[in-house]
Amino acid sequence: MEIGVVGLGNMGSAIAANLIAAGHEITVYNRSPEKAKKLLALGAMLAHDPAGAANGDIVITMLANDDALEKVAFGEDGDGLIEHQGKSTVHLSMSTISAQLARKIAAASVAANKPFVSAPVMGRPDVAERGELIVMAAGDKSSIARCKKAFDAIAKSVHVVGDRPERANIVKLAANFMISAMIESFAEAFALLRKNDIDHHLFLQIMATEFFKSPIYEKYGKIIADEQFDTGAFTVKLQEKDTRLALAAAIESEVPMPFLNVIENAFLSAIGHGKGELDPCVIAEIAAENAGVRIRAKR
Amino acid sequence: MEIGVVGLGNMGSAIAANLIAAGHEITVYNRSPEKAKKLLALGAMLAHDPAGAANGDIVITMLANDDALEKVAFGEDGDGLIEHQGKSTVHLSMSTISAQLARKIAAASVAANKPFVSAPVMGRPDVAERGELIVMAAGDKSSIARCKKAFDAIAKSVHVVGDRPERANIVKLAANFMISAMIESFAEAFALLRKNDIDHHLFLQIMATEFFKSPIYEKYGKIIADEQFDTGAFTVKLQEKDTRLALAAAIESEVPMPFLNVIENAFLSAIGHGKGELDPCVIAEIAAENAGVRIRAKR
Amino acid sequence: MEIGVVGLGNMGSAIAANLIAAGHEITVYNRSPEKAKKLLALGAMLAHDPAGAANGDIVITMLANDDALEKVAFGEDGDGLIEHQGKSTVHLSMSTISAQLARKIAAASVAANKPFVSAPVMGRPDVAERGELIVMAAGDKSSIARCKKAFDAIAKSVHVVGDRPERANIVKLAANFMISAMIESFAEAFALLRKNDIDHHLFLQIMATEFFKSPIYEKYGKIIADEQFDTGAFTVKLQEKDTRLALAAAIESEVPMPFLNVIENAFLSAIGHGKGELDPCVIAEIAAENAGVRIRAKR
Amino acid sequence: MEIGVVGLGNMGSAIAANLIAAGHEITVYNRSPEKAKKLLALGAMLAHDPAGAANGDIVITMLANDDALEKVAFGEDGDGLIEHQGKSTVHLSMSTISAQLARKIAAASVAANKPFVSAPVMGRPDVAERGELIVMAAGDKSSIARCKKAFDAIAKSVHVVGDRPERANIVKLAANFMISAMIESFAEAFALLRKNDIDHHLFLQIMATEFFKSPIYEKYGKIIADEQFDTGAFTVKLQEKDTRLALAAAIESEVPMPFLNVIENAFLSAIGHGKGELDPCVIAEIAAENAGVRIRAKR
Repeated sequence: MEIGVVGLGNMGSAIAANLIAAGHEITVYNRSPEKAKKLLALGAMLAHDPAGAANGDIVITMLANDDALEKVAFGEDGDGLIEHQGKSTVHLSMSTISAQLARKIAAASVAANKPFVSAPVMGRPDVAERGELIVMAAGDKSSIARCKKAFDAIAKSVHVVGDRPERANIVKLAANFMISAMIESFAEAFALLRKNDIDHHLFLQIMATEFFKSPIYEKYGKIIADEQFDTGAFTVKLQEKDTRLALAAAIESEVPMPFLNVIENAFLSAIGHGKGELDPCVIAEIAAENAGVRIRAKR
Repeated sequence: MEIGVVGLGNMGSAIAANLIAAGHEITVYNRSPEKAKKLLALGAMLAHDPAGAANGDIVITMLANDDALEKVAFGEDGDGLIEHQGKSTVHLSMSTISAQLARKIAAASVAANKPFVSAPVMGRPDVAERGELIVMAAGDKSSIARCKKAFDAIAKSVHVVGDRPERANIVKLAANFMISAMIESFAEAFALLRKNDIDHHLFLQIMATEFFKSPIYEKYGKIIADEQFDTGAFTVKLQEKDTRLALAAAIESEVPMPFLNVIENAFLSAIGHGKGELDPCVIAEIAAENAGVRIRAKR
Repeated sequence: MEIGVVGLGNMGSAIAANLIAAGHEITVYNRSPEKAKKLLALGAMLAHDPAGAANGDIVITMLANDDALEKVAFGEDGDGLIEHQGKSTVHLSMSTISAQLARKIAAASVAANKPFVSAPVMGRPDVAERGELIVMAAGDKSSIARCKKAFDAIAKSVHVVGDRPERANIVKLAANFMISAMIESFAEAFALLRKNDIDHHLFLQIMATEFFKSPIYEKYGKIIADEQFDTGAFTVKLQEKDTRLALAAAIESEVPMPFLNVIENAFLSAIGHGKGELDPCVIAEIAAENAGVRIRAKR
Repeated sequence: MEIGVVGLGNMGSAIAANLIAAGHEITVYNRSPEKAKKLLALGAMLAHDPAGAANGDIVITMLANDDALEKVAFGEDGDGLIEHQGKSTVHLSMSTISAQLARKIAAASVAANKPFVSAPVMGRPDVAERGELIVMAAGDKSSIARCKKAFDAIAKSVHVVGDRPERANIVKLAANFMISAMIESFAEAFALLRKNDIDHHLFLQIMATEFFKSPIYEKYGKIIADEQFDTGAFTVKLQEKDTRLALAAAIESEVPMPFLNVIENAFLSAIGHGKGELDPCVIAEIAAENAGVRIRAKR
């Protein structure tokens, strides 16, 4: 298939590379074109604006936040991606964005009679590189069906959430919330254990391996227990952005979510203490400091 | 080995039955002796007071709360279990109790020169029946070693936390906290999804099977998603008791734990709304009601 | 002076009436004109659109929320109040709106070279009727100075917060937060007292009269202690709207505010339980119900 | 009257001095007797144990915490104040203690047929020195009546809460909660204002003088706005102790109090960050730091 990929951060680049590897014809666009180099070497073509990537079978957008996607979708003067998108080109939005923006793009796409699928993903960049993302997709069935071969190349599973695109985004935000809640749970438990001079690595083992039996608990728990917060994989600031979107969805929906408030405040406190560029797991350091436990982080 | 079992609730009875099945000689005591019937039929002997079960190789106490264990351990007039415990009989305390009481019993045991091991467990009654408990043990090494055959009959793993008995209790309370945090996380996420008419069973599947890949997430998530809160396995009131102990440990240790506060308040609210005898997962109903989602619980 | 008043809810009407009483020439506009009747009888003139009220010395806008003010200020097709505002007419915005919208209107006013003062107020409608509002004003000094006679007619005090208009809005949102925090404080304290069968009216007297010596504590405390939540003065839904704006300001500013989260959740829970049209003080009922205290509200 | 005063901290000393000034015959006791010097110079007599002060008309206990009062009341081997208290001597307990201990002393006093009145106070040491404490008293009416002349010398008002002594303590803990809630409210509001470069002294003036019109808001707000946290009047650690008692009362009563949790966590965080000996208002510094506002405290 002919597929455009707009947005070549860690996630977008990994997705594009996997699509190329699966034999698709890829056209890429990124605001700063040097990020495209590696993909061009793999055989991708370069578009000079988002519109230039929007006339194949699918155009994937994978951008950093609402602002970036809004600019791409609507352009500065109404001449954005939606305007130039092919009549049969599916706009496959994989960014983590607000339900509100998903709704707005969906409405504009309906008005322009252009197919739109919202399909945010779970998985950090290393998971994207392995082509093992979890996709949550929403939109009309036939449009989703037309993305199947693209999904095959980048995801280990695709979950169809329904036909209203923004619902996929709410599912994604709720999933992010579950991850952050696990991190904060470890953060507080470890603070309690460490204050009592108890080996938190042992606790991690009991929890991750014996009890929850979850590789995700192992992975995140290890980052926290080892105090290795310069993973480079993700940052507090990015996770806070996603948490903020979840909070916006909660308030718009009039749903009290006290855990979500605690999480948002933990991320804000981490930023306030100058830890915004570290791994989100660094909120464990905030919890430990509030408990009077001094962490000699191995940075 | 000769083993006494004091306290024949669901947990104590399941432990005693597994010890009998493994060939140990069991003497049981319970305040209301009718609970012993089934075990007597399996070959257990009946003691008429805790002291009567405290002179074999091990005496296990498995009681409902601090009060119950304190009465057993110290008696009404100083003539409790510790007083009558054999010099070489290990008192193996498996109840979920406060760090404070564990410390007090440890001190009294040292003063009386009687071996004491604190070894609370993870696992609901069905897990205890299958002999698959997770044990967290603390005390002196030789005393813990002498309990090995008992552990073999009732547990799938034993984790030695250290030599200060109360630390095993703090680990147990921290583990309970992790479970409650998972429940509240689901509760809030489901409230958000349901308010937006999104299928929360699908979310559960993505989370439990695809992402966390955790049988515990599956088990608890299913209770919540199915709104089957009359499991009989455990109750809000019991979980609130354990949460209260965790909170006491946190405050005594001067560790702020905002998630723990949210959890405690959720359980108190459930009690306040007359749901104290239902499964702890019923806090999802509280979250849903606060969000204006009416649950037609299938009770 | 010639003063336009756009928005004739309880607050706007009371302000207009006081301006008339002080001898000013008033032109009023409201989307549904029947609300103007009483003011016309007092001598006001009627405008047929916001622009028609925007060419005197001052045009006051007092609208229900961001949406309403945004429509008035910018119109549907760019032909809003700012467009038609006289070159020397001060737009005096008294609505409780987001810092974000204040910033947007300020920027548009600068671009159009029209004077803009943001001046939200404290005081419920009865205070507005008595002309005793507290005004927090921000904008350029000369524009604020030109509003002096209008302020004299409606306010007991005017506080100049600075020259960046949105700062007045943040002060207003922070002030609202202080009120809500007082309400929630009473709510929780009363729940504790009532659960212990202690006379909460006595507590109110000690707090309001003896200790804080604050008429505001007396006023709000009495509503809560008397459980008279159908005051008609204000509603949970309106207060939640303001709280939401405060939360938006907090998050935009990256300021963790856990009390604010508790308050927002309390209002959302009140809405979720069908109490959204009652006085904001009704969150005391939520606190009492969560504590298992049944309130026989005298509704 | 003949009055014993047990416990000569800042509060007890001020109370004793005022009683002497009012013409009463005072016998004092303190564990470290040097604290009695100033009072002896004013005419007080010195007792060598609590019992030695417990045979006049009244014996006041004013001690730092539960532990201290429990030791005085019950002694080490059952030979405490209650044992030696005169049959007609009213034990007037003014310490801020838990409801639980008040209940325990009340029960022991009834069993020994000795009069007991629980009468905790509001007011920092400077208020005590001026004889302007607010007293909340509970116990049987005749015993309270017999304390009238003592109250006249030390308090500006006495509020009778009922006949069950521990209720006065719950009222006191609830009142403390109201104060802490006001502090945290200012702390968060100021953090928001400062992050937006808004003058928080102006906000304080609007709130304290114009809106709440409360001298208490003025007093505490000024400490916070001036960042003068070495008042010497009270400390985080002492306030945290009282908050902990309130939390114990809330949990024992099964009353969710989310504000109280936030407050307790704020105090614990202050302790964790080494600010435990400063004024409780220092939690404003914690809020500011979490918001990324650096405070140049004038210490």
